[in-house]
Amino acid sequence: MRDVAHLAHVQLLTPVPDDSAAYFTRMLGMVPVHAEGGSVFLRGVWDYEQYCLQLTEAPQPGIGRVALRARREAALHRRAAALAEAGLGKGWTGGFGHGPAYAFTDPDGHPFEIYYETTRYQPPPDLAAPMKNQPQRHRGVGAGVRRLEHVNLLARDVGRCRLALERSLGLQTNEIVMHDDAEEAGAWMSSTIQGHEVIYTRDALRASGRLHHVAFWLDSRDEVLRVADLYQDQGVTIEAGPSRHTAVQSFYLYCYEPGGNRIEVTTGGYLVFDPDAPPVVWSADEWAGRAGWGHPLPVTFHTYGTPSADAQATDAATTREDSG
Amino acid sequence: MRDVAHLAHVQLLTPVPDDSAAYFTRMLGMVPVHAEGGSVFLRGVWDYEQYCLQLTEAPQPGIGRVALRARREAALHRRAAALAEAGLGKGWTGGFGHGPAYAFTDPDGHPFEIYYETTRYQPPPDLAAPMKNQPQRHRGVGAGVRRLEHVNLLARDVGRCRLALERSLGLQTNEIVMHDDAEEAGAWMSSTIQGHEVIYTRDALRASGRLHHVAFWLDSRDEVLRVADLYQDQGVTIEAGPSRHTAVQSFYLYCYEPGGNRIEVTTGGYLVFDPDAPPVVWSADEWAGRAGWGHPLPVTFHTYGTPSADAQATDAATTREDSG
Amino acid sequence: MRDVAHLAHVQLLTPVPDDSAAYFTRMLGMVPVHAEGGSVFLRGVWDYEQYCLQLTEAPQPGIGRVALRARREAALHRRAAALAEAGLGKGWTGGFGHGPAYAFTDPDGHPFEIYYETTRYQPPPDLAAPMKNQPQRHRGVGAGVRRLEHVNLLARDVGRCRLALERSLGLQTNEIVMHDDAEEAGAWMSSTIQGHEVIYTRDALRASGRLHHVAFWLDSRDEVLRVADLYQDQGVTIEAGPSRHTAVQSFYLYCYEPGGNRIEVTTGGYLVFDPDAPPVVWSADEWAGRAGWGHPLPVTFHTYGTPSADAQATDAATTREDSG
Amino acid sequence: MRDVAHLAHVQLLTPVPDDSAAYFTRMLGMVPVHAEGGSVFLRGVWDYEQYCLQLTEAPQPGIGRVALRARREAALHRRAAALAEAGLGKGWTGGFGHGPAYAFTDPDGHPFEIYYETTRYQPPPDLAAPMKNQPQRHRGVGAGVRRLEHVNLLARDVGRCRLALERSLGLQTNEIVMHDDAEEAGAWMSSTIQGHEVIYTRDALRASGRLHHVAFWLDSRDEVLRVADLYQDQGVTIEAGPSRHTAVQSFYLYCYEPGGNRIEVTTGGYLVFDPDAPPVVWSADEWAGRAGWGHPLPVTFHTYGTPSADAQATDAATTREDSG
Repeated sequence: MRDVAHLAHVQLLTPVPDDSAAYFTRMLGMVPVHAEGGSVFLRGVWDYEQYCLQLTEAPQPGIGRVALRARREAALHRRAAALAEAGLGKGWTGGFGHGPAYAFTDPDGHPFEIYYETTRYQPPPDLAAPMKNQPQRHRGVGAGVRRLEHVNLLARDVGRCRLALERSLGLQTNEIVMHDDAEEAGAWMSSTIQGHEVIYTRDALRASGRLHHVAFWLDSRDEVLRVADLYQDQGVTIEAGPSRHTAVQSFYLYCYEPGGNRIEVTTGGYLVFDPDAPPVVWSADEWAGRAGWGHPLPVTFHTYGTPSADAQATDAATTREDSG
Repeated sequence: MRDVAHLAHVQLLTPVPDDSAAYFTRMLGMVPVHAEGGSVFLRGVWDYEQYCLQLTEAPQPGIGRVALRARREAALHRRAAALAEAGLGKGWTGGFGHGPAYAFTDPDGHPFEIYYETTRYQPPPDLAAPMKNQPQRHRGVGAGVRRLEHVNLLARDVGRCRLALERSLGLQTNEIVMHDDAEEAGAWMSSTIQGHEVIYTRDALRASGRLHHVAFWLDSRDEVLRVADLYQDQGVTIEAGPSRHTAVQSFYLYCYEPGGNRIEVTTGGYLVFDPDAPPVVWSADEWAGRAGWGHPLPVTFHTYGTPSADAQATDAATTREDSG
Repeated sequence: MRDVAHLAHVQLLTPVPDDSAAYFTRMLGMVPVHAEGGSVFLRGVWDYEQYCLQLTEAPQPGIGRVALRARREAALHRRAAALAEAGLGKGWTGGFGHGPAYAFTDPDGHPFEIYYETTRYQPPPDLAAPMKNQPQRHRGVGAGVRRLEHVNLLARDVGRCRLALERSLGLQTNEIVMHDDAEEAGAWMSSTIQGHEVIYTRDALRASGRLHHVAFWLDSRDEVLRVADLYQDQGVTIEAGPSRHTAVQSFYLYCYEPGGNRIEVTTGGYLVFDPDAPPVVWSADEWAGRAGWGHPLPVTFHTYGTPSADAQATDAATTREDSG
Repeated sequence: MRDVAHLAHVQLLTPVPDDSAAYFTRMLGMVPVHAEGGSVFLRGVWDYEQYCLQLTEAPQPGIGRVALRARREAALHRRAAALAEAGLGKGWTGGFGHGPAYAFTDPDGHPFEIYYETTRYQPPPDLAAPMKNQPQRHRGVGAGVRRLEHVNLLARDVGRCRLALERSLGLQTNEIVMHDDAEEAGAWMSSTIQGHEVIYTRDALRASGRLHHVAFWLDSRDEVLRVADLYQDQGVTIEAGPSRHTAVQSFYLYCYEPGGNRIEVTTGGYLVFDPDAPPVVWSADEWAGRAGWGHPLPVTFHTYGTPSADAQATDAATTREDSG
C-alpha cells in the first residue's frame, strides 16, 4: 500500500554553517524561510511545503534526518506501528513547518521521520509568482533548484536497509546491484513513479550512518551544464559529472558544499508506470563498465561520505571517553 | 483510492493511414510493432508495454479509444463495477497486447477502456538497448518521442466529465478553469503525480465525442525546439508553439498529423507531490491573458477538433439514413 | 576591405537610470565597471573590452551612440576619410575605455563612432576567472549575457542607410527585404562572419533616428527560455518570443527595459563563410508569413521604437521654442 | 592579411568505406551528394558548398587532405606563391565541386590544398528548404551536423607547423600550450573569428602526418548530449565527453568512426573579436589539471591517431619492399 507520499526534506549537518548557507543560497539559489536554534530552513522554487532543507551547525558534516510525508493521517499511524514492530521506532517528535512526526532509524542507524500534517508555503509579496499554480517566483540567482529529488545513504548492509524500507514503509525498489556473494551493492527506492527518492549504496569503509549525497532537481540537462560552469568559475569543487548515470539514467553533477557534504544537481531519469515493475537486478559483471557514456566515476565517489569514517571513529572515541 | 496506474495508450483514427503512419514513424520516430485489421501499433522509446498508439483507418479522424491500465486485478474489477453503476459501462472486450478490458464512455461519449493484464515489450535484437533498464534503444530518427503523455478531449460539459472520472476512476484533478457562469472550461486530471494525463476542455462548437489532441513526451525543451525546426523544414503544419502553457506549466508544440488530428510534443510541467493538493481553480478573468510568456494561442486552438463538427453532422446524417 | 573589426558597444538613453541599471544588472546579469557624468558602463561575461553598454540618463529613451572598433589604426583613418567624404563625418572625439573615435551619423541621423585603440578588461580578484582564456568569471546572476550581439535601427530610408554603411564602412549585407515598390523594408549587415551586427528596418512612423532594439548574446536556446521564465516571474514585459526569426534564423526574446528601450536576448543564427555570399533578397510576398515556425510578431514590433515618435515631435517642438 | 576565407572540407581515408559511410549518414545525418573513384562526398545541413567531407577507401585510416577556401582569386595566388617560396608547395590540382587548387603540405607532411572558385549547393526538390536563407532542409536523421568545424592534426613539431601556417597562410593563433622546454604541445589556429579551424597537437609517438580528429558542428550542448545517447545505444564507441574543453572552451564528444578515425561533435566556444588578440599561452603547469570541469581525458586521447604509428611503420616498410 502506498502510504508514503514523497520524500519531504533532509536535515544536513555542517561545521561551517555560514559558508554552507552561502553555497545553498548563492550557488543553488535556495531561499531561507526560517531560522531557529542553529538551523536555517531553505526552499526550492517548486516546494509546496515551506522547505526541503534544514541546515544545522554541528561538529562534523553528515545527515541529521531524512523526512517523509505520509499520504494521510491513517497512513502515518499504520507506518508508525509497522516501524515500532520492526524495532526501528524512536517515538513521536515535532519540527518546524509540519505536524507530529514519528522518528525512526533504518538498520544502519540513519535518522528518519515521517509525518502527515504540514503547512503549505505562502510567499511574501516579493516572492509571489504571477501564476496561481506556482508556489514561488523565479529569482535568477544561481542554479535555481526546484526541489529535493533524492537522498543517497551509505550502509554496511544495503539489503537489510532496503528490506526494512520495503516492509515498514512500503517503498518500491526499482534497481538493485547484486554482487556475486549475493551482497547488495546498491538499491534505488521510491514512494512514487519517480525512479528514486532513497538510495542505499554499500559503505566501502564499513562505517555506519553516513551520507553519500543529497540531490536537488533542475529542469534540463542544459541547466545542469550551466551549474558546472558556475561551479568552476566560483571555485566549487566538482567531483564528477556532468554526465549520465547508469541507474535510473538520470543526469548528474556532484560537488562538495563547504561543510563537506556531497551535493548533486540532477535532472532526467525515467518514471516507473508499471505498477508491478520488477526491480532491475544487475550482477557485478553487468554493472561493471556500464557507467553512462562510459564515464568512470572517480575513486572518491566510492569511498567518501559524511561524516568521514575517521571523524566517526574519533567522535565515537570521544563519546566513549565523555561517557566514561 | 489509486486504482488506475496510468494512461496506457490511445487509438487514433485517420482517413489516410499510410500518411499518418509516415508522420508517426519519420517525424516522431515511433516504431511499429504490430499490424492487424486496418490498424498499426506504434511505440515510443520508453514504453514498457508494447505500444502507446494504435493507428486505425477510418472515414474521418478522431479518437478511437483511450486506454488506462489498472494497478491490479482487484482494482480493475472495482472500477468496472463503479463504471457500470454510473451507467457508463459497455462491457468486457480485449485487444492486442493486453488482457481483458472493460469498455466504457465518459458522459460526452468518448470511448475508454481499462485493463490490468499486459505483456511487456521484448525488443528484437536490432532494437535491444545496451542497458538493462531501457526497454528499447535510441534510433536517431525524428523526434524520438519517449511515451504517450496525455490526451485532451473536447466535451460539451467539462464538469460532468471531470466528476465522472473522479468518481468512477479515482482520477485526481489538478487544475480547473471555471467561467463566471460556474461552467467549467477546462479540467486537468491525473492518476499519478504527473500534472495531467486526461484533460477536458469545452467544445466551442458544442459537438460531442471530439478529440482536441494527443501529446507525446520529449526530455527537454531543446528537443521540442528541434522538432519545430524539423516540422518547418518537412512541411508539417505548426499550429502553436513552441511555448509554455499556463496550466501545468508544460512546454508545448502543436501540429496536425496528415489525418487531421492535432498532435503535441511536450516536456516539463510540474509533479504533484502533495497527496491532498486542492485543484488550482482559475476564474475566467484570472485565466484570460495568462498564457505562458504572454503568447496567445491561435483561434483554431479553441475551435478545431477531430472529427470536425461538420464531419460529425454529416456522419450522423449518413448513419441515420443507413439505419433508416 | 574589412576595416571594421566588430560592433563594440552602444550607448542607451533612459529616463529612469536606476531602474534601467537594475534591469541590466539583475535580469541580464551585467557587471558595472565604471560610472561618470550620468552614465554607468556595463559589461557581459565575455567582453574582452571593458564594456559593451553605456547607460545614460536622458529625458527620453533611445540610442545615444553605436560604436564600432576598427581593425587597425590605418583602417580607422581610412574609414574616417571615407565618412567625411560622404558628408557623414562629425569629427574626432573620445570616450571611456578607448582611444580617439571618429564620430559620424548614418543618413537617418543615428549617431555612430569608430575607434581603434582600446583598453582590455582586467577583472578585480572577485571576478577573475580560473581559466586564462576567460575575461571574467560566471556569477550566476540573471541571464548572464555574454556580449552585445547586434543593434537594430529604425530608418525612414533603409536602402540609403544600408548603402552608406556598405560604402563608407565596408560592412557586408547578408539579407534584404525588398518591397514591390523597390523600397527596402529591412537590411541585415555585418563586419564579421556573424549574420548581423547592424540591422536597419523601416520606421513605420516615418520618424528619424529611432532605435528598434539592442540584442545581447546567450549560449543556448535553453538559456533564452530560462530568461523568459525569469522575465515572467519578475514582471518584465515580454513583447515577443522566445521564438525563431526568419532572417539569420536566430532565436529571439524581446522585452522592454524599464526605460522603454526594446531589448533582445538572442542565440543561434548562421555564420557566413562564403566570402562572396550574395545577400538573400526577399520580396514582400516571400517575406510575408515566413516568420520562423509561423509565429506572427505583435503589431508593436512593427511600430514601437525609442524614442516614441510622439516624444520626438514634442522634443523637436521644445527645441525650436528653446532656440527661438 | 586575411586571404583564407575558411576551412572548407577534409578528405578522410577509411579501410571500411561502407561502414564509415553508414556512420556519417545514419549517426551524423550527413547527405551524400556525389560519388566517384572510390570516394563519396557528404554534406552537413548548413554547407553552402556542396560538401565538407570526402570519404575515400584506403588501406588504412587517416587524413587524405585538408582543403581551405581563399577569399578571392588574387588571395589564392598570393598564398600559392608564399607556399612555394616556403618550400611547401606541391603544384596545382583540381577536385570535385571547386576550381583549381594549389596543393601543399605542412612541415609535418599533412596534405593540404587551397582553392577559390567553388560551386554552391543546389538541393534536389526533396531537400530544398522552405526558407531562402537555408541551403538545405533538416531531415531528422541522426545528429544532423551542420558543417565541418575544425581539424586537429598530430605533429612532431607543433611550433614549426604553427609558424608555417601563420606565415604562408596568414592564419591567426588563439591559444598555445608551451612546455618548459619551449616545445609547443598544442596550437589552436583560425582564419575567422572562430576560436579554431586548424589545431596542431604534439604526436606522442613522434610519428608524422597523422590525424587526431575531425570535428562537426551542432547548435547546442543539449544536441551533443543527445548524440551521446544515440552513440551509446547504437554501439558507437565514446572515447571522451560530453564535456567542456579548456582550449577555446568548446563542448566536445569524441568517438571512433568504423574506419578508426576519431570524430568529434562540438558546439560552443568563444569568438575572437579583438583583431590584435595575442594568443593565450599556457605553461605546462597552467595547462595541467585545467581540463574543463576537472574531467581528465583518457590516455588514448593523448596517444591514438590515424593511421596508427604501427600501421605507418608497416606501411612504410611495405612501400620500401615494393619499391625495392
